[in-house]
Amino acid sequence: MTDPSTADLAKALGDTQTAMNIMWTLLCGFLVMFMQAGFAMVETGLIRAKNVAHTMGMNFLVYSIGVLGFWAVGFGLQMGGVGAIFGGDATLSSEFTITVAGHTLGLFGTKGFFLTSGAFTSGVAAMFLFQMVFMDTTCTIPTGAMAERWKFSGFVLFSFFIAAVIYPIYGNWTWGGGWLSSLGANFGLGHGHVDFAGSSVVHMTGGMIALVGARMIGPRIGKYDAQGNPKPIPGHNLSMVVIGTFILAFGWFGFNAGSTVSGNDGQIAIIAVNTMLASASGAFLAYAWSKYRFGKPDVSLMCNGMLAGMVAITAPCAFVDAPIAILIGALSGVLVIEAALFIEKTMKIDDPVGAVAVHGVNGAFGILCVGLFANGQYGIGMNGVEGGVTGLFYGGGSGQLLAELIGIGANVIWVGASAFVFYKLCDKVVGMRVKADEEVDGLDIPEMGAPGYAAEPGKVIPPELAPSHGAMTPVMKVAEEPA
Amino acid sequence: MTDPSTADLAKALGDTQTAMNIMWTLLCGFLVMFMQAGFAMVETGLIRAKNVAHTMGMNFLVYSIGVLGFWAVGFGLQMGGVGAIFGGDATLSSEFTITVAGHTLGLFGTKGFFLTSGAFTSGVAAMFLFQMVFMDTTCTIPTGAMAERWKFSGFVLFSFFIAAVIYPIYGNWTWGGGWLSSLGANFGLGHGHVDFAGSSVVHMTGGMIALVGARMIGPRIGKYDAQGNPKPIPGHNLSMVVIGTFILAFGWFGFNAGSTVSGNDGQIAIIAVNTMLASASGAFLAYAWSKYRFGKPDVSLMCNGMLAGMVAITAPCAFVDAPIAILIGALSGVLVIEAALFIEKTMKIDDPVGAVAVHGVNGAFGILCVGLFANGQYGIGMNGVEGGVTGLFYGGGSGQLLAELIGIGANVIWVGASAFVFYKLCDKVVGMRVKADEEVDGLDIPEMGAPGYAAEPGKVIPPELAPSHGAMTPVMKVAEEPA
Amino acid sequence: MTDPSTADLAKALGDTQTAMNIMWTLLCGFLVMFMQAGFAMVETGLIRAKNVAHTMGMNFLVYSIGVLGFWAVGFGLQMGGVGAIFGGDATLSSEFTITVAGHTLGLFGTKGFFLTSGAFTSGVAAMFLFQMVFMDTTCTIPTGAMAERWKFSGFVLFSFFIAAVIYPIYGNWTWGGGWLSSLGANFGLGHGHVDFAGSSVVHMTGGMIALVGARMIGPRIGKYDAQGNPKPIPGHNLSMVVIGTFILAFGWFGFNAGSTVSGNDGQIAIIAVNTMLASASGAFLAYAWSKYRFGKPDVSLMCNGMLAGMVAITAPCAFVDAPIAILIGALSGVLVIEAALFIEKTMKIDDPVGAVAVHGVNGAFGILCVGLFANGQYGIGMNGVEGGVTGLFYGGGSGQLLAELIGIGANVIWVGASAFVFYKLCDKVVGMRVKADEEVDGLDIPEMGAPGYAAEPGKVIPPELAPSHGAMTPVMKVAEEPA
Repeated sequence: MTDPSTADLAKALGDTQTAMNIMWTLLCGFLVMFMQAGFAMVETGLIRAKNVAHTMGMNFLVYSIGVLGFWAVGFGLQMGGVGAIFGGDATLSSEFTITVAGHTLGLFGTKGFFLTSGAFTSGVAAMFLFQMVFMDTTCTIPTGAMAERWKFSGFVLFSFFIAAVIYPIYGNWTWGGGWLSSLGANFGLGHGHVDFAGSSVVHMTGGMIALVGARMIGPRIGKYDAQGNPKPIPGHNLSMVVIGTFILAFGWFGFNAGSTVSGNDGQIAIIAVNTMLASASGAFLAYAWSKYRFGKPDVSLMCNGMLAGMVAITAPCAFVDAPIAILIGALSGVLVIEAALFIEKTMKIDDPVGAVAVHGVNGAFGILCVGLFANGQYGIGMNGVEGGVTGLFYGGGSGQLLAELIGIGANVIWVGASAFVFYKLCDKVVGMRVKADEEVDGLDIPEMGAPGYAAEPGKVIPPELAPSHGAMTPVMKVAEEPA
Repeated sequence: MTDPSTADLAKALGDTQTAMNIMWTLLCGFLVMFMQAGFAMVETGLIRAKNVAHTMGMNFLVYSIGVLGFWAVGFGLQMGGVGAIFGGDATLSSEFTITVAGHTLGLFGTKGFFLTSGAFTSGVAAMFLFQMVFMDTTCTIPTGAMAERWKFSGFVLFSFFIAAVIYPIYGNWTWGGGWLSSLGANFGLGHGHVDFAGSSVVHMTGGMIALVGARMIGPRIGKYDAQGNPKPIPGHNLSMVVIGTFILAFGWFGFNAGSTVSGNDGQIAIIAVNTMLASASGAFLAYAWSKYRFGKPDVSLMCNGMLAGMVAITAPCAFVDAPIAILIGALSGVLVIEAALFIEKTMKIDDPVGAVAVHGVNGAFGILCVGLFANGQYGIGMNGVEGGVTGLFYGGGSGQLLAELIGIGANVIWVGASAFVFYKLCDKVVGMRVKADEEVDGLDIPEMGAPGYAAEPGKVIPPELAPSHGAMTPVMKVAEEPA
Repeated sequence: MTDPSTADLAKALGDTQTAMNIMWTLLCGFLVMFMQAGFAMVETGLIRAKNVAHTMGMNFLVYSIGVLGFWAVGFGLQMGGVGAIFGGDATLSSEFTITVAGHTLGLFGTKGFFLTSGAFTSGVAAMFLFQMVFMDTTCTIPTGAMAERWKFSGFVLFSFFIAAVIYPIYGNWTWGGGWLSSLGANFGLGHGHVDFAGSSVVHMTGGMIALVGARMIGPRIGKYDAQGNPKPIPGHNLSMVVIGTFILAFGWFGFNAGSTVSGNDGQIAIIAVNTMLASASGAFLAYAWSKYRFGKPDVSLMCNGMLAGMVAITAPCAFVDAPIAILIGALSGVLVIEAALFIEKTMKIDDPVGAVAVHGVNGAFGILCVGLFANGQYGIGMNGVEGGVTGLFYGGGSGQLLAELIGIGANVIWVGASAFVFYKLCDKVVGMRVKADEEVDGLDIPEMGAPGYAAEPGKVIPPELAPSHGAMTPVMKVAEEPA
């Protein structure tokens, strides 16, 4: 064998680096997919036992709905215009744009639908998988806010719209080459709307849909008394909440560090550590704040504090110093509690799991943190703008902050309005809320045909001899066929 | 330091690529190992509370039994003849063969037993770990089909035989250089029996053993009435079923995409996406079909639909287009429900978790899909045959399909017969079914010495004051020593 | 473009390898972080339902406490003197040393506190994340041994001391360039105290703290009768114990194989397989031994057997042959049961989860195995000593064994003494044990404000109609605000 040329070696090394990047992106994508299990546990743990099959059913099926809607429509809308992916692959490169005052503004992509064979390259596939699991995180957020009263068929239809339309459009604007990402190049506003891993694209979008949905579907029966005062409705299983939160924290490393879509980028270590630091200070401040506020440290609030810290650090994770990550997490740990109280007591919106406070409020807060705290050392040349992303407190002026604010405004308007329209549409077509008597009895039997925690049919064991779990009561009605 | 030569650099780059491949294989293997937790949750969720310790105990110990049996005997039988592994490592290269009509047919390997020091290289170790976790997936499938009545000591002995003999022999035929893999080179049948990640080797083998076992051990007491009509016996905890299914879907990315045993193969992204797509359409069609068939969408059937989709895509995942992956999943989502009904109602076989329908039926279906839908773009030169693997509908003729059918036939004969023999043997030696009164009372106390859900001994709390879980009843008998 | 020079290529290849090493270290670190969920499940499953919120709360918050304590103080103390990390990064290089008989002995690092911007490079960040999750494993071990009676505020304060001081000092001695690691170079004792992945640094440290804590806090009320005989207090949920153990086994691959902090080191495959083998023989021998000892195979002891096998193989995993890994696991499976009985019956120490037997006793045993069984093929040049690490039975003489024994002695003295002092301090400042009536009623309401398994407030369902889980009893007192 003759010795290889240096050009051959450079090509082979480049291919190896591309393979590493795909490997990293896939592994991180797998971790994000696993977050579905975390959401399912947190949400189900926080609702009552009579609605377990229904809540688990939503959290389970939303993954499939998301895959199908994103495969058929959403991915093409979001990423159809991105051009080169992973080592020069450029099968996707068609964006619908409008021109405003001489500036080209992208609105949505027009390629990649159904991943037909021409578009199904290795690079596109890796990108599809990674974007899909991000999108599905958004889809699963409203199931918590509308839990215990959402009609299953309404949930199915509405979720398709999130996956196919609501999320992908905003995703295109920020990550697919759309107009928010070009606010810097077009109008000189920093690097445009920068959201490293999805505080706005994923979390604020999910939180906005949750807010609109929870408002429109109304509170659970018994949540507010005649005077409009909220009553606590504790969840049925705190163990599930804690384990689900740990699963989310585990997957979140893939969420944030994977968003480099490059294993060759040393920043992945910085990102992972910032994510860890903010999660810790978020949980710890929620511990301290709940103890101060209510007299006892509340475990489910600690969990929401950790989630809030991770939501808030998601946008700035690549751009901030370690002590700032601690600070962002700490602020979000207090913010999530105060926001939840405000939503429940003042806005009178019933959100059983605190999804709006965790994802919506802290998503917006995280986006602002980019405009405030980005240290200028990363994101060099991002969105076609020279230099690194720099926030107000690091000498970047107000341009970056303004771009972030515009991103928040666009999210409120687009996501809020489209969620409203699709809610109304679904309500007409299949209905959105279950009947009152079904809600009081629990949704499991009427909606899913079987309870979450079943017992042996026809066998009533006297309580004093009963095993402690599961074998006490006849099943009222089970599906005709066992699984 | 003098500059390195291009030959040195090529060597160093090759070593780096080999390291990447080992890293990928290990990480994917870890994910597959984690599927043990998924199986444990799905199976235990689907059985009654009185058998929780027993079902969890089987699902837990099967991993250890599998490791020990595969380490001592199975790995050598399966992979002892494979030759080069990971960058030229060739310590395993001894296959027992017979010659038929001038063709050499491999039957089993004869090297690598006990991983003794000579055979314990880095490449062999990586391959051992990856093959081990696949094998153990097979081992854990029958524990579901025979749950709630299988004697624990019978389970232990039988599982050793699966790990040491039943699985490895068939594994050798398909993946270890044995006769099924050379059907193409020897007899012109496409690329021989091709099973990319284990629809036949892992799932159909597990499903066949489950079928034979469930048939021989007989139905649970009370499963059929006097007229032979099946009665539903709902599982005790649906949350566990859903979370277990998500864990399986998470691990399945390692299962399928890891089967390249190469992180440098860009196909890993295509494989992962096809796996995701089929899982989604499988679950969604099971949702729609159960709603159509029974009036309500059944959550545990949705879970089985997702599993069926993943089982079916496992063989063809590397060879098909994205819309075909959707189609395969969709068909399997319906097939798994109809197959479960047929097995229960017509065949009168009691399979508490649907293991035969999920793994056996859809494993065979997935293998057929390779012969039907392989698009000819991948598997170039596989099993010593030129060109890519090509199915009937993509111009490949019937050769590939025939090789897949032969693989199915060989599985039915070898696995069916050996499972029958080992079942009889175990029944003689230690017994396979618990006593009737133990089955009625639950297996936990008589077989495992402690219930799955224990209560505080000696402390009976009046029901109206009882915490909702765990502290209601005196433990009938607990092990002498706490854990 | 002109062809690159070979020097450029060598640089680019080296950078790629460094990126691979960081990627590997991060991914393995994520797996270790996920072990927090495993510990939470194992510990909570083994305690009573009335203490679920408290036990889960400790296991949850300990992660945050650990991050904060290690970020502020611990990491600098442990790793501040290590010098080059990942491709030449040398921002940490300051160790406090003393000189004894002409030998320089490192005591603790003095750089890297708060990860301030100068120290926050990619390499340091990766190392921080990896060391942090190891440290936190130690922090979470005592929560099991002191469960069901530990005051939450005492737990919080004490855990900070573990993260900030107790662990990092011993970690420095072994892994941060401190005096235990230089016993070979300084005094000719093999390669110094070698602990590949933490049998002593992580597990024995955690076990020692657990031992001191459980001894000082005293047994749970009702654990011993008037004659001092122990009474069994079974855990409330065996499913959680099994799934938690699988999560730990999954994460342990990252724990051990990640400890190369190099994805380019082929030994990762050997390490992963040895870990798997020891886990299997540990669980299987615990199965056989519990069956022999108590008449029934005990599932929670099988779980502890697997954990013991993994603890014991953690130190020697990179240095031993496969059959030796099986042997080490097998011995630990018996040892863990006998040690638990000795601690409970003879020492009269109440350790609800067996943490001291699993982590303390088997940690020490694993360290000894390095001195006995290391085969001399790996660890070439480790700690500045020529050749590979070699144990007594492989011709290494007694030097290596002696270094391991000194490491054990140093652990007992430092960890034991400092745990004692900090226990006394915390007891003075905030108190360490809850009041007796709180302990009898359960810690969830008085300490955490809400039960682990809540019911619908104000709604008492007659037992014969009750769903099997969760809706039976009015909540005695719930936090003012829902989550």
